[in-house]
Amino acid sequence: MDPTIPDGAIEPIGVVSSPRKNRRDDEWGAVESTITLDADQFDPAALNGLAEFSHAEVIFFMDRVREEEIEWNDRHPRNNPDWPSVGIFAQRAKSRPNRLGLSRCQIMSVDELTVAIRGLDAIDGTPILGLKPYMEDFGPNGPVRQPAWAGELMANYY
Amino acid sequence: MDPTIPDGAIEPIGVVSSPRKNRRDDEWGAVESTITLDADQFDPAALNGLAEFSHAEVIFFMDRVREEEIEWNDRHPRNNPDWPSVGIFAQRAKSRPNRLGLSRCQIMSVDELTVAIRGLDAIDGTPILGLKPYMEDFGPNGPVRQPAWAGELMANYY
Repeated sequence: MDPTIPDGAIEPIGVVSSPRKNRRDDEWGAVESTITLDADQFDPAALNGLAEFSHAEVIFFMDRVREEEIEWNDRHPRNNPDWPSVGIFAQRAKSRPNRLGLSRCQIMSVDELTVAIRGLDAIDGTPILGLKPYMEDFGPNGPVRQPAWAGELMANYY
Repeated sequence: MDPTIPDGAIEPIGVVSSPRKNRRDDEWGAVESTITLDADQFDPAALNGLAEFSHAEVIFFMDRVREEEIEWNDRHPRNNPDWPSVGIFAQRAKSRPNRLGLSRCQIMSVDELTVAIRGLDAIDGTPILGLKPYMEDFGPNGPVRQPAWAGELMANYY
């Protein structure tokens, strides 16, 4: 479709270093990891003031998902037949078009080009594409509603 | 840096149609717009069940920001000298590396390949890269803290 993204317009700004080396569904809440910005592109000024925020929002490329795994239509979340088959854009499965991950995490500290974080659901070596401070006004406006399966799926996620 | 993103791995999945045709800083809360998925890639099954969620999270490519506008280090948010100069990753300015926008918005309805939304801060024609349902457990874990300038900047945003 038009418009497209120019080649090279979206490249890693940094990388995750995490004790989690392999894909895993649950128990991300206590995982302590780091994001280190690419020293060829950035200097520490790019992180100046980030430590004044409690949380960051992180966009990452889930590079360990193979292209042939991508789901384009609908499926049961986690292939669990107890949950309804829903569209790939009505779930947060990693095997999705563009393979973009998106999560909030706690900021523990910032040192030079490295942000120490807690609760990021990205495995070791994951390329980072976006990093923003979480601001309260960017939270959901109005009450949050979600289907029952989503709460069940998330029960052990964090 | 290594790893890089393969050419073509991240392409638009859809596009925004909005009454806002030009860049503007504030008053996004009442803007009603749509996201329409690319009919060459998707059929309506990809959105099946999305209407059961109250909010979506949207990742978009801010294509109207020119490459030469990108800030790589620090600056005053909105170039306002009353606020401290902070790193580009300690603010949510659009003129940022990779030009990725990220917001939550309300889901009003879903019809075929089109999602009607409210409060998305993306102008008409913006390419969409990611669309996920907002789930409560993906909210910030623990109390949110942010510097005073962030609250002042956001006062009229939504």
